[in-house]
Amino acid sequence: MNSAVVLSVLGTLLRFQGIIMIIPLLVAVYYNESTMPFIVGIVLTEIAGTFLWLRYKSDAEWKHREAFATVAFGWLTVTIFGTIPFIISGISPINALFESMAGFTATGATILDNIESHSKSILFWRSMIQWIGGMGIIVLFIAILPKLNIGSRHLFRAEVPGLKEEKIKPRIRETAKILWMVYLLISSLQIAMLYLAGMSIYDAIVHTFTTIGSAGFSPYGESIVAFNSPLIEAIITLFMFIAGVNFVLLYRTFYIDHTSIFRDEEFKFYTAIILTATAVLILTLRYGIAADPFTCLRYALFQVVSIITTTGFASVDFNLWPDSSRIVLVFMMFIGGCAGSTSGGPTVVRVLLLLKYANGELFKFIHPRAVKPIKFNGKVVPAEIIHQVISFMVIYFLIFVTSTFLISLMNVDIVTAFTASIATLGNVGPGLNLVGPMSSYNCMPSIAKLIMIMNMWIGRLEVFTVMVLFTPEFWKK
Amino acid sequence: MNSAVVLSVLGTLLRFQGIIMIIPLLVAVYYNESTMPFIVGIVLTEIAGTFLWLRYKSDAEWKHREAFATVAFGWLTVTIFGTIPFIISGISPINALFESMAGFTATGATILDNIESHSKSILFWRSMIQWIGGMGIIVLFIAILPKLNIGSRHLFRAEVPGLKEEKIKPRIRETAKILWMVYLLISSLQIAMLYLAGMSIYDAIVHTFTTIGSAGFSPYGESIVAFNSPLIEAIITLFMFIAGVNFVLLYRTFYIDHTSIFRDEEFKFYTAIILTATAVLILTLRYGIAADPFTCLRYALFQVVSIITTTGFASVDFNLWPDSSRIVLVFMMFIGGCAGSTSGGPTVVRVLLLLKYANGELFKFIHPRAVKPIKFNGKVVPAEIIHQVISFMVIYFLIFVTSTFLISLMNVDIVTAFTASIATLGNVGPGLNLVGPMSSYNCMPSIAKLIMIMNMWIGRLEVFTVMVLFTPEFWKK
Ligand SMILES: [K+]
Ligand SMILES: [K+]
Repeated sequence: MNSAVVLSVLGTLLRFQGIIMIIPLLVAVYYNESTMPFIVGIVLTEIAGTFLWLRYKSDAEWKHREAFATVAFGWLTVTIFGTIPFIISGISPINALFESMAGFTATGATILDNIESHSKSILFWRSMIQWIGGMGIIVLFIAILPKLNIGSRHLFRAEVPGLKEEKIKPRIRETAKILWMVYLLISSLQIAMLYLAGMSIYDAIVHTFTTIGSAGFSPYGESIVAFNSPLIEAIITLFMFIAGVNFVLLYRTFYIDHTSIFRDEEFKFYTAIILTATAVLILTLRYGIAADPFTCLRYALFQVVSIITTTGFASVDFNLWPDSSRIVLVFMMFIGGCAGSTSGGPTVVRVLLLLKYANGELFKFIHPRAVKPIKFNGKVVPAEIIHQVISFMVIYFLIFVTSTFLISLMNVDIVTAFTASIATLGNVGPGLNLVGPMSSYNCMPSIAKLIMIMNMWIGRLEVFTVMVLFTPEFWKK
Repeated sequence: MNSAVVLSVLGTLLRFQGIIMIIPLLVAVYYNESTMPFIVGIVLTEIAGTFLWLRYKSDAEWKHREAFATVAFGWLTVTIFGTIPFIISGISPINALFESMAGFTATGATILDNIESHSKSILFWRSMIQWIGGMGIIVLFIAILPKLNIGSRHLFRAEVPGLKEEKIKPRIRETAKILWMVYLLISSLQIAMLYLAGMSIYDAIVHTFTTIGSAGFSPYGESIVAFNSPLIEAIITLFMFIAGVNFVLLYRTFYIDHTSIFRDEEFKFYTAIILTATAVLILTLRYGIAADPFTCLRYALFQVVSIITTTGFASVDFNLWPDSSRIVLVFMMFIGGCAGSTSGGPTVVRVLLLLKYANGELFKFIHPRAVKPIKFNGKVVPAEIIHQVISFMVIYFLIFVTSTFLISLMNVDIVTAFTASIATLGNVGPGLNLVGPMSSYNCMPSIAKLIMIMNMWIGRLEVFTVMVLFTPEFWKK
């Protein structure tokens, strides 16, 4: 492996991150809060970034290994330097790493027990890294991973229309620019709507950051319950839903063909799951907590959208619901939003293809010689792609099982271990029992925290990107 | 589909079943208990069997569909007629169906709340159907399923050495005869050992029936705790372990090459999992229940072997253990014993191949063009077999998820729903919480019982055999 190429990119990333930290610094100045967390952060990050950049400046070509290493270690490096403001403001290193990883991976799993005790600028930083993380994920998924044979451009609609196939670098830059545009547009819209619905401008920005990134950190311990406003819940639901859609599809729908979204099979299935799950949840809530129909609808829709898009906001403490209702949300954690969105989880398209595959396999037993290809959006899906979806699911599941097992061994109840594991691997955020939406992950043992930090990292980078680093093959020669 | 062929075989099965019922009838006579349950059972079963046999006598050839229908409906029919003794002795029809299905599928999940209140002959019948079910499973797996493209003869060592490839019917008969021999031999050995260890002859026979069938019904509400004897526990552990091994491999080891068992990759992995899980369980028990090392070992080994072989006996109420210990047993439920044994679950060989597959997939990302075939017992496994293992796992998992979800909706806690689902689909027997080893499934809602009856049936017949019946394709034309 050519480590110079990798280290050079890490340098560039850090130099960029140092600049980004100026924004929370300005927030700190505005609110008259301690600026030290960000000054130290900027200085250390810039020094490290400039050192790497000067020392390893390189224009050598990326090969497979370099690309994997850049993505995986890039995310890790940014996360590590992202801890500096947290550590300076008094959070322990392991907790700071957990919080920073939960931020940059847009997981939104917090270890802060008393959120309101932290300064506005720290909470701003905590929200902003999720928004940046969310954007990073989209660019990663649409522009970088297809080149590493992870995800199919055709399948996941990663083809941005109107761009010519050129050299890789300018293409990534062009694609990223278009996606930034969509991202900024949607974010501005949400800030405006939340502000008009009565939020302060600070709250509007911070909540938009975490909504569009499908992240779910809230500056309030009570999450969205703090506002107790059906209007704000409706706005956030809408934008969580949008952030769970493939951004290329959103771009196409806004700028090229307004109806294309309604012809997309993944979008239709995504919507169908949300409606079905909401209906089931309303029914179980009617029996389980005996609320009136409107309240059931209000709770159900918000929570279903929040969990399937892996945002993780809560408009009610769903951890107190009976298990017949909680299980609906647990199942949403195993689906996730659409591919190419900021959502985590296995994604709707993979679940859909898995179901089509299972159906096809049963068909084969009756007609062993018949060939019935799997179709998606009207086109035949190559066997190789089906194969990759399945291997993704298998490895995802094995990691989930392993981490649940390890966490369970640490005197944590099964439901906590199970949901903490999927909530971090799927980048959801809150789980159930000890890690419910109104509590924090701080109660978990340190080793469990390390496992969950790994989960967030692995889950966010589409599993393979990180897992290959753990094979001896990767490090050979 | 040629239903005459199917109905004719069902007739033969029932006529055979009627004759089998003479044995519990004799037990009833011996213990001076009511003979009505069995007299009614014999009469009705023989009438139905003879009617079908006379009406549909057929020598037409089995095709794919006929074979699937025969296996799936055969098991169901035998189960339904098996309920007669239970119903006559006062058990409700749905409970009788549950108990009979738990018997013939060797699941051992009971709905009897007060087991000791039932007559010795009824408890004998309840144990015997598990022994017969267990034998049926081995013949099914080794002699019938490979012909339906379910399971590979090569892979699962379904090739009985010394038999020539001839016509299908005589071959099945020959294979079945050899397996019966091994089955009877092991059973006689266990009866003798349990008797020598102090059990009554009745208890020895009944416990052998349920051990060799990997079934786990006990005539005592307290299961093996009732004996409180380390010697009896050790004997049962040994025979549970043996019943979890491929019977063809046992045959080969006894009669042809005594060392062949130690060269078998599945057997080695099976043993390794048991030893590892026992070690982990001992550690968690030392901390969790603070027992002395010998007691920890005694509890851990018995329970691990009981659950991985999907027998389901309990030598202690493991439901009272802390979650860090219970989770070890939950994981065993998702593995199961070796293929071609009486155990249920996905089986060790499938889990092993899935791990090899996942490992190979990671390798591919680093060397996209390299071809590294998966090997098992020194031979390359054809891609088609790997494909089938994966499709099995996917469909198994989807059924598990669906049934957990449906059971959860019925006001049952998540852990109960989760373990009840896998304990029935994997033919294990006991689960956790409400369905722990010292309780019964009677507390579950009726619809949940029906779902679990389906689970036992589907799980026992290697999933595909039943699932194809639910495809519209199967019933076309
Ligand atoms: K999240
Ligand atoms: K069993």
